[in-house]
Amino acid sequence: MFEARLVQGIMLKKVLEATKELIQEANFEVSAAGINLQAMDSSHVSLVALNLRSDGFEHFRCDRNFSMGLNLNNMDKMLKCAGKEDVITIKAEDGGDTVTFLFETPNQERVSEFELKLMDITSENLGIPETEYSATVRMPSGEFQRIVKDLGTIGDTVEIGVSKDGIKFSANGDIGSANVMCRQNTHADKEDEQTLIDMNEPVNLTFALRYLASFTKATALSPAVTIKLSKELPVVVEYKVADFGFVRYYLAPKIEDEEMEGE
Amino acid sequence: MFEARLVQGIMLKKVLEATKELIQEANFEVSAAGINLQAMDSSHVSLVALNLRSDGFEHFRCDRNFSMGLNLNNMDKMLKCAGKEDVITIKAEDGGDTVTFLFETPNQERVSEFELKLMDITSENLGIPETEYSATVRMPSGEFQRIVKDLGTIGDTVEIGVSKDGIKFSANGDIGSANVMCRQNTHADKEDEQTLIDMNEPVNLTFALRYLASFTKATALSPAVTIKLSKELPVVVEYKVADFGFVRYYLAPKIEDEEMEGE
Amino acid sequence: MFEARLVQGIMLKKVLEATKELIQEANFEVSAAGINLQAMDSSHVSLVALNLRSDGFEHFRCDRNFSMGLNLNNMDKMLKCAGKEDVITIKAEDGGDTVTFLFETPNQERVSEFELKLMDITSENLGIPETEYSATVRMPSGEFQRIVKDLGTIGDTVEIGVSKDGIKFSANGDIGSANVMCRQNTHADKEDEQTLIDMNEPVNLTFALRYLASFTKATALSPAVTIKLSKELPVVVEYKVADFGFVRYYLAPKIEDEEMEGE
Repeated sequence: MFEARLVQGIMLKKVLEATKELIQEANFEVSAAGINLQAMDSSHVSLVALNLRSDGFEHFRCDRNFSMGLNLNNMDKMLKCAGKEDVITIKAEDGGDTVTFLFETPNQERVSEFELKLMDITSENLGIPETEYSATVRMPSGEFQRIVKDLGTIGDTVEIGVSKDGIKFSANGDIGSANVMCRQNTHADKEDEQTLIDMNEPVNLTFALRYLASFTKATALSPAVTIKLSKELPVVVEYKVADFGFVRYYLAPKIEDEEMEGE
Repeated sequence: MFEARLVQGIMLKKVLEATKELIQEANFEVSAAGINLQAMDSSHVSLVALNLRSDGFEHFRCDRNFSMGLNLNNMDKMLKCAGKEDVITIKAEDGGDTVTFLFETPNQERVSEFELKLMDITSENLGIPETEYSATVRMPSGEFQRIVKDLGTIGDTVEIGVSKDGIKFSANGDIGSANVMCRQNTHADKEDEQTLIDMNEPVNLTFALRYLASFTKATALSPAVTIKLSKELPVVVEYKVADFGFVRYYLAPKIEDEEMEGE
Repeated sequence: MFEARLVQGIMLKKVLEATKELIQEANFEVSAAGINLQAMDSSHVSLVALNLRSDGFEHFRCDRNFSMGLNLNNMDKMLKCAGKEDVITIKAEDGGDTVTFLFETPNQERVSEFELKLMDITSENLGIPETEYSATVRMPSGEFQRIVKDLGTIGDTVEIGVSKDGIKFSANGDIGSANVMCRQNTHADKEDEQTLIDMNEPVNLTFALRYLASFTKATALSPAVTIKLSKELPVVVEYKVADFGFVRYYLAPKIEDEEMEGE
């Protein structure tokens, strides 16, 4: 039997907002340690990894490990029916073919039960190696979202460069060009408003803006985003889920030779 | 001559919002007692009844009873031009072919006159018998609207069951099922936030969600909605118009035999 | 070399909002006195004139007069990337083929550079003669916008009449007619909420509502609008740009004979 009760039910709503655009169907791997999900987007270009640790739940019981195959759009439809203040409980019987989402208002006046059918989904677990990155930038998530959106009106790709001074985003298109420089800033009153650069060596990589735009659907999850960059490695874009998990996105950089061939 | 001056002009704007989706054209029956309207929706499935008592108007003069045939979408277009604070006066001459809506800002700086053409509309007055219902539920109108909207993402019909504990809404669909239980709650601070169950015998009836969704366009009219249910009778969904009237919707339940045939 | 630094960068964003619907491409004429633009809309019915005086800029340097041909939609796309609080600097090299927009957040943390390609645009400068108008009305710009929008739901043209008492807007259409009277009002607390009539002789002119609707895209620029009317002359609809400029729209009245022919 599996049962997990989350007082901050809204975090689960935001997790779905953050993932359903990229992933249509996925297996949630449930164990005593928590809930994990890892999936490529439907075009097999980017990867999403979700982790929710069991200690973040008010109550978490998982008698044996299992995979919960779900259509994320249908799951999102049901979670949209939970109120912002609702406590959400996820329940599944061993060997059952449904998962139940229970939504309770804080005063227990309204109790809703939504039952979603499980699916058989073949998934490959990709095993992402832990790496040390050349540059790690932590910046306000709203700022990152805005830059990605703005540059998307100018071009299709963005060049991201990190130097000691800051992180620079550049795009080119038919109507002209744009570059946006965010300077290191450790003096903002709130930690989440700071821009922090941790750099071993300068990096300069190019990415498709449309995938970054999908990643920024996670902006509501956290006021800060962490971006990790290394030459020839996929960028990692990470949003914390409160203090008990994360949503991470991976996207391979565009290789210059490929680009030249394409032109 | 007919002239009716409504200081809370916004209530008239909300009445149109609440009715124009279901009814395209209708006769407003005007008498010294007030304004009445009764009409089937265009698919002849649900019925809308509106009552505005003359004592709710600052000034109400009606020399002789008459029918005012109006296109509700056009009337709504004109009422949308009234400000939220505007005083609205409705005027019609005996035997004229137009009705005039006069909008005055509280300080009289802007005075607008909108003249709408009258129409000849054949209407049957249906005479709704007064009945005692098995169950009457009074609940927050926003809560009802939300449940109807949420269940509409799951299925096409809703089963509404009333017991002593509360009112339960259930729906089924391709992706799964949902049921929402609202418990009796007489302790909310504001009366309008209470959920009150008045039940002679338990009832369990099934309705088409799309009509209920149209009924909830009246949510802005009142913070509370009253739902009256009896076996084999149309449900009544009622919203008060301030303290001088109401909008009531009637919808026949789905009969199980019919449903089974349909399957 | 041309360089102009505007602390209230948002005013430039609003100027583009106010003009890009009517004008697709135009020459910004730059001189030591400031920036001017004058262009007919694409259907050659209305005229837009923009003036931004150099003294409104924190820094303004223009070594020699020149024309800056720009696509206003592309310029607007770039200015939309400036934040509300951003300082905007416009820069162009002599003989260059681009203009650069520099956006700086007040704390200098984010600095963005957008480079837009210049265009060769043939423009005729039309020379608008200064005239004394029969009637000048100053009214809240939001009120004017609202009336234009409301009457647009009733008809295609508006008759504007000014008398000593106020300004009256009338429209007719298939569903009925409307007229809105705004009375002179010199007692409003804030000057911008006053409606002031300055009249030498009564006027009554008819205009196409769709152009007036485009003019009201300038509403965000200023809380007040000034409307100048004379028989057989184009109406002038003017919005101030802070205390250093204006956007003015000109639209010829419909001539009654023409209208009769048209029917």
